[in-house]
Amino acid sequence: MSGSTFGRNFTVTTWGESHGPSIGVVIDGAPAGLPLASEDIMPFMNRRRPGQSPYATQRKETDQVQILSGVYQGLTTGTPISLLIANHDQQSHDYLALQTTYRPGHADYTYEAKYGHRDPNGGGRSSGRETASRVAAGAVAQKILQQLQISILGFTRSIGPFSSSVTKINANEIHQNPLYMPEDEAFPQAIAYLDKCKHTGNSVGSVVECQITGLHAGLGEPVFRKLEAVLAQAMMSIGGVRAFELGDGIQSSAMTGLDFNDTPSGRTDCSIQKETNHSGGIAGGISEGTTLHFRVYLKPTPSIALPQKTISQDGTPCEIQISGRHDPVLAPRVVPVVEAMAAIVIVDFLFDQMHSNMKQLEDFYQASKS
Amino acid sequence: MSGSTFGRNFTVTTWGESHGPSIGVVIDGAPAGLPLASEDIMPFMNRRRPGQSPYATQRKETDQVQILSGVYQGLTTGTPISLLIANHDQQSHDYLALQTTYRPGHADYTYEAKYGHRDPNGGGRSSGRETASRVAAGAVAQKILQQLQISILGFTRSIGPFSSSVTKINANEIHQNPLYMPEDEAFPQAIAYLDKCKHTGNSVGSVVECQITGLHAGLGEPVFRKLEAVLAQAMMSIGGVRAFELGDGIQSSAMTGLDFNDTPSGRTDCSIQKETNHSGGIAGGISEGTTLHFRVYLKPTPSIALPQKTISQDGTPCEIQISGRHDPVLAPRVVPVVEAMAAIVIVDFLFDQMHSNMKQLEDFYQASKS
Amino acid sequence: MSGSTFGRNFTVTTWGESHGPSIGVVIDGAPAGLPLASEDIMPFMNRRRPGQSPYATQRKETDQVQILSGVYQGLTTGTPISLLIANHDQQSHDYLALQTTYRPGHADYTYEAKYGHRDPNGGGRSSGRETASRVAAGAVAQKILQQLQISILGFTRSIGPFSSSVTKINANEIHQNPLYMPEDEAFPQAIAYLDKCKHTGNSVGSVVECQITGLHAGLGEPVFRKLEAVLAQAMMSIGGVRAFELGDGIQSSAMTGLDFNDTPSGRTDCSIQKETNHSGGIAGGISEGTTLHFRVYLKPTPSIALPQKTISQDGTPCEIQISGRHDPVLAPRVVPVVEAMAAIVIVDFLFDQMHSNMKQLEDFYQASKS
Amino acid sequence: MSGSTFGRNFTVTTWGESHGPSIGVVIDGAPAGLPLASEDIMPFMNRRRPGQSPYATQRKETDQVQILSGVYQGLTTGTPISLLIANHDQQSHDYLALQTTYRPGHADYTYEAKYGHRDPNGGGRSSGRETASRVAAGAVAQKILQQLQISILGFTRSIGPFSSSVTKINANEIHQNPLYMPEDEAFPQAIAYLDKCKHTGNSVGSVVECQITGLHAGLGEPVFRKLEAVLAQAMMSIGGVRAFELGDGIQSSAMTGLDFNDTPSGRTDCSIQKETNHSGGIAGGISEGTTLHFRVYLKPTPSIALPQKTISQDGTPCEIQISGRHDPVLAPRVVPVVEAMAAIVIVDFLFDQMHSNMKQLEDFYQASKS
Repeated sequence: MSGSTFGRNFTVTTWGESHGPSIGVVIDGAPAGLPLASEDIMPFMNRRRPGQSPYATQRKETDQVQILSGVYQGLTTGTPISLLIANHDQQSHDYLALQTTYRPGHADYTYEAKYGHRDPNGGGRSSGRETASRVAAGAVAQKILQQLQISILGFTRSIGPFSSSVTKINANEIHQNPLYMPEDEAFPQAIAYLDKCKHTGNSVGSVVECQITGLHAGLGEPVFRKLEAVLAQAMMSIGGVRAFELGDGIQSSAMTGLDFNDTPSGRTDCSIQKETNHSGGIAGGISEGTTLHFRVYLKPTPSIALPQKTISQDGTPCEIQISGRHDPVLAPRVVPVVEAMAAIVIVDFLFDQMHSNMKQLEDFYQASKS
Repeated sequence: MSGSTFGRNFTVTTWGESHGPSIGVVIDGAPAGLPLASEDIMPFMNRRRPGQSPYATQRKETDQVQILSGVYQGLTTGTPISLLIANHDQQSHDYLALQTTYRPGHADYTYEAKYGHRDPNGGGRSSGRETASRVAAGAVAQKILQQLQISILGFTRSIGPFSSSVTKINANEIHQNPLYMPEDEAFPQAIAYLDKCKHTGNSVGSVVECQITGLHAGLGEPVFRKLEAVLAQAMMSIGGVRAFELGDGIQSSAMTGLDFNDTPSGRTDCSIQKETNHSGGIAGGISEGTTLHFRVYLKPTPSIALPQKTISQDGTPCEIQISGRHDPVLAPRVVPVVEAMAAIVIVDFLFDQMHSNMKQLEDFYQASKS
Repeated sequence: MSGSTFGRNFTVTTWGESHGPSIGVVIDGAPAGLPLASEDIMPFMNRRRPGQSPYATQRKETDQVQILSGVYQGLTTGTPISLLIANHDQQSHDYLALQTTYRPGHADYTYEAKYGHRDPNGGGRSSGRETASRVAAGAVAQKILQQLQISILGFTRSIGPFSSSVTKINANEIHQNPLYMPEDEAFPQAIAYLDKCKHTGNSVGSVVECQITGLHAGLGEPVFRKLEAVLAQAMMSIGGVRAFELGDGIQSSAMTGLDFNDTPSGRTDCSIQKETNHSGGIAGGISEGTTLHFRVYLKPTPSIALPQKTISQDGTPCEIQISGRHDPVLAPRVVPVVEAMAAIVIVDFLFDQMHSNMKQLEDFYQASKS
Repeated sequence: MSGSTFGRNFTVTTWGESHGPSIGVVIDGAPAGLPLASEDIMPFMNRRRPGQSPYATQRKETDQVQILSGVYQGLTTGTPISLLIANHDQQSHDYLALQTTYRPGHADYTYEAKYGHRDPNGGGRSSGRETASRVAAGAVAQKILQQLQISILGFTRSIGPFSSSVTKINANEIHQNPLYMPEDEAFPQAIAYLDKCKHTGNSVGSVVECQITGLHAGLGEPVFRKLEAVLAQAMMSIGGVRAFELGDGIQSSAMTGLDFNDTPSGRTDCSIQKETNHSGGIAGGISEGTTLHFRVYLKPTPSIALPQKTISQDGTPCEIQISGRHDPVLAPRVVPVVEAMAAIVIVDFLFDQMHSNMKQLEDFYQASKS
């Protein structure tokens, strides 16, 4: 398996290259009876659409999603949902000139070493284009979560050295911001910094944060499928993500136990209350019912307009200058992908959770008899 | 599945609680013909043995590993290898008193919410005891990697605020250091700091780093099974790990592309050479053949001797003081677990890599004919 | 997961209903460097095409297969191969009238019980239409097997009570026969019998046999993934298959050990020679390197033109008469599906086999260094 | 993976060879809160115990099952249940003499071809001994099914040419019969025939049938995970099983549609009523809520006392006579294994079924809130 399927009971299989005729995704395991139309998916596609701000490349892809199967008379049938997205903007020509050198920060060499061929198609499967399929699948997962009042909100926490310190995140504000960033004093600094990067042909790293609310306690498994472990795989599988942090994980490595331990202050059957939430909403691999929050750290976009030293396929040193349009920063493009992958993970763990104890099984079997 | 199996073609299934009669692991998919004896496993078990330094709890477990299946006349047979480790030191009594309150930083509440029962057995499967099974399985994976000259070295990068800046790590020095830490100026500071924590009954966070050398280019899959994504799941599944970072991932989020992109300087069929290795040895989810390096960030040990505020099972606020022996820092205990999980991941991806292209398949099938 | 993915390392995910806009399949894990074009797939699609003989329904589907991803410049890239097949002949109207009664021998009731809705779309996923996706995926597997000189030949062994006794099967003859049946004295009897069934509006059961040659010894795993066990799942997953038999399995249940045991007469490194092949080419779950042969037993086509007693959705007894075009026998339509599923299974086990012993692993790793 | 794990959400991993110190199984995914003690498992172990009748080999194994994990204060905890069974009767000596020839009907050659070594240990993993682990795991699955009033009854349908025609099977009678066979006129004939086989040193084939009652409609998935497909894998993975038949599947291949289609006569929410049950209780891969019934066809025991022609490892023709104790027929030993595998399959599909439609998911999530 080349690793294009994700999930256990709610599975997502993406296919397609950035510059083929189309890309797509097959979702297997969506429950029957969910209202679903392409209108449910398009808002998510629009959020990742390039060309919406000066900080994303100016391709005019519309990314219309076509539902090919699994929906009848507006409801899911319980069978695979196949989604197709046409590629309107195939420009392999831009990249063909690069065929004989290795672009720094790209997977040109590793693909060649693995598969025995050079993929000139804009980076093939490791290209950002593949993430459109994830966002489409994530929209289906989001639709399921909406029915359960579970919300997922991703946003840009920092751009280069400029980091927002806002703690109460406003979803509407985020959705309208061109960088999906909270609008405190860091935002105009980030904008100015990005403009400078863009003009010099350079790029910059960033941090995306994600908050999940409405989640009950009990999701996640104690050992290898700890909730944060599967979230980490999901997030690190997004191109450009170089680190994953649950709660205040990085800081915690320099803190004391007395300072880091959250103090419980109350409980219900589906959540604990705590005075702080350093843990990020997970304990022992299992959700606490508090806000689940995590961060992903993104490297700078590897394609930059500045000249760079590299080697050609035969190992000879040379210089390369990459033309074409490139985002100066990854975060705004990655925010919807982070949300999509989080939604896919949460739905899968909800299913897992349904057979955790005998009472659930007995109630279910009894109910089907009536 | 409660998530106790890890891996695709080389799978590891751990079982057992910290305070039952024994724990163990079943390894399925180890190739036939590997020389294996419990003597190969014991050095790894000894490295994680508590009681070897003042900075780990003083239980006198010997952790003898018994091979119950899968080995005949000193060689693996290709069938499951079942390893058993007796629990000599069952002390559920220490913990029983805690049965009616939720320990801060522990999974007491989440286990109860998930399974409908309170597990008084020292934290059950989320306890550090489970990791002994991983280390035993990792030893088998390490034995395979040794035959291929692939080395995995984990070490403590920082303890609380004290971080070693050594870049060339000496394996012998690490193996003999009581904290598995390089011995620059940070080390005595860390020791002094730990002593202080211990005396005050507090604990402290830490960072573990891991370097893998001898790895060829080509391991990893482009999308959901990127090598770093599966490594992230593996590492985040270790109790106490709160963040995973590939290469210089966290720093990269504040760097520019020009500074972060590594400059290629040469190549062979199984590796690229680069002037720097910010990428951590992976591009597009696939190994580059350079040193693979990553870090995990560990929260402070949650069990501390200081009094803490919490709630009882019915939600009433109360105070708790945890008796018993506890490590003041997790890193030295986690280093061998990080190495074990890394070894398991790498073996699995080596298998994956064997069917990546037609030439390999044709060569294999031709060879079996002769 | 609704169970639409098959395979471990070579996986096939089918999607689509019989009467939606299109159906398709995603193949993940095909090795890079395989020459592949839609022309390689079409001969297999044509073999299952309805309308080619009087004994299959007369729909004029052409089943053109479009390759949407995974192939570049005529070679597979190692990434998912997405195949799309348009549905030209959507006739849900024929079936809509049946919406309120349960057709005998169909899955109308069970779908409703499972998913909570009645699927009027010609049987949804359990329809024969889904098998077009399997045949397309099987063609890719066949292309891999051809490079290794492994051949798979399916044929009709019996139609109703008429069974061919031919033992040496001629592939060309089978491919040209309208029932894919050997042409001994049973064939004209089967034809006459089928004609009678057709005229009376009845249908009839059948048996398909499959022979795999060129297979080396060593494929298959000793316990749950015995080669015959996975073949059995693959075959029983084809609609209408009601029994699976390896070698002379059914007869063997009334034989003695002395008569059933095959007598070995010679050996090479990749096969054993035997005087008989009652075992069907597998011992202990692992291929012997002799011809692998098995049979599948097919029930009569459930849709018949004769009036039948049944019940409506509210349980009231009623009578039903099913209009529309239906095959009087399943075997000729199932032969290419049996071959396809067999090819998919064999490729997957070839991959498994590559990491069975240390010598293979060491040779592989050494080879990638050169 | 050497294929020693079975199941998706309720997984069973067996390990151990027939003549090592012990064998065992790890069950992952059993729900928390199930009452479980080794006393629940022993009746199932006793039923497969050799030595209980003259028609099974006379080893005096007691097969005590030890529960090593996953149970606390008499209830399952939701974590892996590890079961250990000691091997009291290791007799590799009997077999060592055979090391240089290939026993007809055994896997000696195929193991060697696969793993590169000859396994002298009584057939290794393909030995009947491995099935003790399956029966132990099946007992846990049966315990779950008992809580839901689902019953599984296996019995011997035929021995050699003697087949019982009883249709109403009495569980008590079956459990007390030394061959687990209904006691009509075929039974004394089977006994006489077996005695003859035993005295001549020959063996004979047999058929086992299994009936599952209390099952609701809706279990199974439409495509690759049809309920009968996974049952077929489960059954064909049992050593000696050479064919699997759902309902009247073999007969159906010579019947007409009018005769084979079952006539529905009524319905509830969890089952359909039909005048006949040729289908075996499954339609479109999904359970109908009627009795599920299937048969497995067993080859004669391959080890016979009569002299047989074979070859030695270097290919030279020779003669072999196998000493030691061997069952003259497999059915009575296989009946409890068939029941165990069926129970494991059914529990797994019950879990699958819990997330088939949105109503179930919404009810579940709502319930966890209260």
